[in-house]
Amino acid sequence: MAGNLKRALLGNPLHNREAAHQRLSNPVALAVFSSDALSSVAYATQEILIVLALAGTAFLQLTLPVSIAIGVLLIVVVLSYRQTIKAYPGGGGAYIVARENLGTMPGLIAGAALLVDYILTVAVSISASVAAITSALPELSPYRVPMAVFFVILLAIANLRGVKESGALFAGPTFAFVGLLGFTVVVGLFRFITGDPFVVPPPAEPIEAVQAFTLFLLLKAFASGCAAMTGVEAIANGVQAFRQPEAKNAAKTLTWMAGILLFLFMGLSTLAVLAKVQPSEAETVISQISRAIFGTGWMYGIISASVAVILVLAANTAYADFPRLASFVAEDDFLPHQLKDRGYRLVFSNGIVVLTAAAIALLVAFGGVTTRLIPLYAIGVFTSFTLSQTGMVIHHLREKEPHWQLGLAINAFGGATTMVVGIVIATAKFADGAWIVLLLIPTIVAGFLWIRRQYDRARGNFKLTPDELTDLNWQAYNRMHNHVIVLVKDIDRRLVGALRYAKNLKADVVEAVFVDISGDGPEMRRRWEEAGVGIRLHVIESPYREIIPVILDYVRSIPRPSKDHVVTVIMPEYAAENPADQALHDQTSFWLKVQLFGEPGVILTDVPYRLEDVSKPQPGKA
Amino acid sequence: MAGNLKRALLGNPLHNREAAHQRLSNPVALAVFSSDALSSVAYATQEILIVLALAGTAFLQLTLPVSIAIGVLLIVVVLSYRQTIKAYPGGGGAYIVARENLGTMPGLIAGAALLVDYILTVAVSISASVAAITSALPELSPYRVPMAVFFVILLAIANLRGVKESGALFAGPTFAFVGLLGFTVVVGLFRFITGDPFVVPPPAEPIEAVQAFTLFLLLKAFASGCAAMTGVEAIANGVQAFRQPEAKNAAKTLTWMAGILLFLFMGLSTLAVLAKVQPSEAETVISQISRAIFGTGWMYGIISASVAVILVLAANTAYADFPRLASFVAEDDFLPHQLKDRGYRLVFSNGIVVLTAAAIALLVAFGGVTTRLIPLYAIGVFTSFTLSQTGMVIHHLREKEPHWQLGLAINAFGGATTMVVGIVIATAKFADGAWIVLLLIPTIVAGFLWIRRQYDRARGNFKLTPDELTDLNWQAYNRMHNHVIVLVKDIDRRLVGALRYAKNLKADVVEAVFVDISGDGPEMRRRWEEAGVGIRLHVIESPYREIIPVILDYVRSIPRPSKDHVVTVIMPEYAAENPADQALHDQTSFWLKVQLFGEPGVILTDVPYRLEDVSKPQPGKA
Repeated sequence: MAGNLKRALLGNPLHNREAAHQRLSNPVALAVFSSDALSSVAYATQEILIVLALAGTAFLQLTLPVSIAIGVLLIVVVLSYRQTIKAYPGGGGAYIVARENLGTMPGLIAGAALLVDYILTVAVSISASVAAITSALPELSPYRVPMAVFFVILLAIANLRGVKESGALFAGPTFAFVGLLGFTVVVGLFRFITGDPFVVPPPAEPIEAVQAFTLFLLLKAFASGCAAMTGVEAIANGVQAFRQPEAKNAAKTLTWMAGILLFLFMGLSTLAVLAKVQPSEAETVISQISRAIFGTGWMYGIISASVAVILVLAANTAYADFPRLASFVAEDDFLPHQLKDRGYRLVFSNGIVVLTAAAIALLVAFGGVTTRLIPLYAIGVFTSFTLSQTGMVIHHLREKEPHWQLGLAINAFGGATTMVVGIVIATAKFADGAWIVLLLIPTIVAGFLWIRRQYDRARGNFKLTPDELTDLNWQAYNRMHNHVIVLVKDIDRRLVGALRYAKNLKADVVEAVFVDISGDGPEMRRRWEEAGVGIRLHVIESPYREIIPVILDYVRSIPRPSKDHVVTVIMPEYAAENPADQALHDQTSFWLKVQLFGEPGVILTDVPYRLEDVSKPQPGKA
Repeated sequence: MAGNLKRALLGNPLHNREAAHQRLSNPVALAVFSSDALSSVAYATQEILIVLALAGTAFLQLTLPVSIAIGVLLIVVVLSYRQTIKAYPGGGGAYIVARENLGTMPGLIAGAALLVDYILTVAVSISASVAAITSALPELSPYRVPMAVFFVILLAIANLRGVKESGALFAGPTFAFVGLLGFTVVVGLFRFITGDPFVVPPPAEPIEAVQAFTLFLLLKAFASGCAAMTGVEAIANGVQAFRQPEAKNAAKTLTWMAGILLFLFMGLSTLAVLAKVQPSEAETVISQISRAIFGTGWMYGIISASVAVILVLAANTAYADFPRLASFVAEDDFLPHQLKDRGYRLVFSNGIVVLTAAAIALLVAFGGVTTRLIPLYAIGVFTSFTLSQTGMVIHHLREKEPHWQLGLAINAFGGATTMVVGIVIATAKFADGAWIVLLLIPTIVAGFLWIRRQYDRARGNFKLTPDELTDLNWQAYNRMHNHVIVLVKDIDRRLVGALRYAKNLKADVVEAVFVDISGDGPEMRRRWEEAGVGIRLHVIESPYREIIPVILDYVRSIPRPSKDHVVTVIMPEYAAENPADQALHDQTSFWLKVQLFGEPGVILTDVPYRLEDVSKPQPGKA
């Protein structure tokens, strides 16, 4: 039944040989990897306006130079990532670039920053989208958290089905968003060019200057606008999902994405300045502009819906990228190996599940209102930009490929700029919650190192010495000394198979053990003799009614002078047909196994007993 | 560490021989078993007033005759329960009486009704108490649910420590409540007798008649007032907790409790009528009366606090009773046997845990506002009253003990009355939620019957036939045919112990099995040959990357023509030092055990491998 459900939700399993086919065409890859970056135009211009408005409406015009600066920065970052793609066609983005060129620690910092970012991306985008829906339909407001969780689960299922299917699901809405917003920008600019300008009416609450204009304020506006750049690294991380030649296709798609992003972002910022848009609590900038151009009609409705949908899809970028990055990190032993297993449908299922759980936890913890987290995730993005580009600087100096001087200049400039921006964001937003990220990243890095240490230790330990390798061949060993214990609860059918099995083992001692918690030990001994079982019954009194500690003590008390001595604990267990029935029978064996597991030289053997066993013929009996 | 925490919270374990000492003196038993019943005077009069007020303030005077009728009913029920205690000194109340005299189904219905009631008692009393606290200290209002959960956990710990200790904890507050409320009643009545009457000022919102006075309204008022009677059965269910002679002490304590309850309830109802109290949303009747007598001073504060405390303790009655009743029901195989185990401190720990979990679930689900549930639990109480007293009628007719005619009359009258009241409550409150209880009880009864069926089936099946009993003696059997499989993940140290163990078993076949999920099968085979392991390696290809289903299929494919043929699956498992490290290693063995468990003729053997094993000397090696 569980299998059928799985199949219905996820489709049929995919064969290993289908791996190469699970690649994306460029347009589909554009939809899958760029919804995060593209969706940020929905709020980037607004973030700049909000900061500048602190100094008064007169300074709103500075939005244009700030946007141009961000646009230039975007071009620099994209050019840098094109080189990264060429240099690292295997993908991996900032983590791999920083690790290879700068060393382990910078790589891990980049990895931690990105993983945190992907989780934040899911939580923030989904809750922003739900907020968009609930502000249109306020009666849904009480169901904010369930709606958000529902969307996350939907995304998880789509991604568990596989990257190609999820691409097909998401391509339409992404292109619709690009088309609708592009149309808005073109129509708006056309009206100004053709001498038919429009002005957005100022909001009901007039904006008052609350502080003097400073250079720091301008930097803050720039930093806030950099929210536009979250998500541009996605393609460089996901090169492997492209069709062959992967690097070339990925670079081409990255350029397309940057072009679209630049056009939409610059267009909206220009329109905002031309139409004298003022930021408002009640209405987003994008909504003000589109309403001014098209009126409050069906076109406006479609654009609003499209914004809500693209925000859900932005979360999908993280779904395309988090599991892949986690698999790279796990490959290097810094995360549990389960994260590198490809599941049933060839996707990194465990990574998808972890991302889903973390995002749902964030959404529930914050009651579905995570917009406050938006500024936080810029920190992670710029940390990874900086590390990635600094890594590329080292790469150029080392490899000296053709035109390396240009690349060096681009990457050095990009690295320096993104570092400054990162520091500005961290400083400006420190009290607002940036400290959380600044605390979280080192914690995660410490976790990575701990995991790696565990794996190193285990691996070193698992390795056979030449001596031991020889020992694998039986002849080198003494005969094993086996002390076999059969746990007895009652003299009934459950015991029969276990006793037979015990008597069939090569052993020095075979004995039965009964724990007397209510004074019925002598009676059990009498019945044991009467049944003529033929092996010794050891009765342990336990007046404090404890079973497991008493058995543990007894097992530990059996001398095991060398590795040739083992104790085999045989547990006759009732195997019910269903979990409900199983729960009715005592769980002592289960807890005993948990406690005894790993006790040196103790072997645990379950001999299950099923009701069905009885009704079957027993042809083998003499 | 877990053990130390347990000891700190619950005290040292108690020896079986201390069982007889865990008995209660009569005053302590009064505190433990009657807080539920006594706390109901905090709202019973008010419930009557609320219903009568629907017909207008003129009808509020009818509170007195209604209270007298309830008082008479209480006397009848208590007289009946005194006889039950004498007839059933073993305790068990309605469940045992109904089961013995009326048959299994009535007994189970009574049992289900009572178990549901105890859970409701905990949830309702705790949330009412929290409501009392938060209405005094509104700033605590947002922490309603955590506070309620905290109180429930506190009660659970007190009760896990043992019944005597929890008695000592609760005696003081119960007696304080009785003393304070008794004093209030005496002072109030004294003022009317000595010609110093007082009138409670009517509430701000005047009461308007919203319906005509009808006989049904009077019955509803009576039914609502019957909330005063919840909890009176507790003593009859708990006879075994009293000191010897148990029955006599329990009967005496029941009479004391009934006397106190009657005095407080009748006194408060009389004062309410004399002082012309009108029910109000804003203030409870008990608060109105005590404030009118003592003014809004420290005495009023102490009385209010005492009411809040007694409501927490009312929940404790359920803690004294639910686990005991559950153990009786489990004794008869209608509930899981785990419920009849006495824990560490001789109390029915599992019952306490189940009650706690259920109550917390209710509190969380209802957001800590469960006052709406108050009327519901009267249904369960009256169902069990009716069944218990009807059972006593049959008992009298059968046993014909001295004075049986009087007993018969009392029980017949009581049974008939409580049945009528039960039907009235169920009818009047059906739409308000009584339907939930009326649906829940049959569901639980069905559950009881299912559990019993499982146990009957298992017991019948576990029983050895004389043939099989003979077979326990080894000589009667053929040699077992054992096909041993060692699961191989890699050729490393984890494998060494498992291989040695496998080679030491008496077996027809010993082979190693490797599942190839990524095409490395040939490489593994080469290394296997090179290592010279000496047993055959069976490689299974799994291009869909599934491990467990592939092993399951293989194990199932091994022919087991008779019960003399078994397959032993040996799993080399890495036993980490801590759960965090364990989680880093793959969980395949665990899930494989879950899936293979109960497969006929398949024996599961864990050979754990620990890192420590290596550092230890290996003196036994030749």
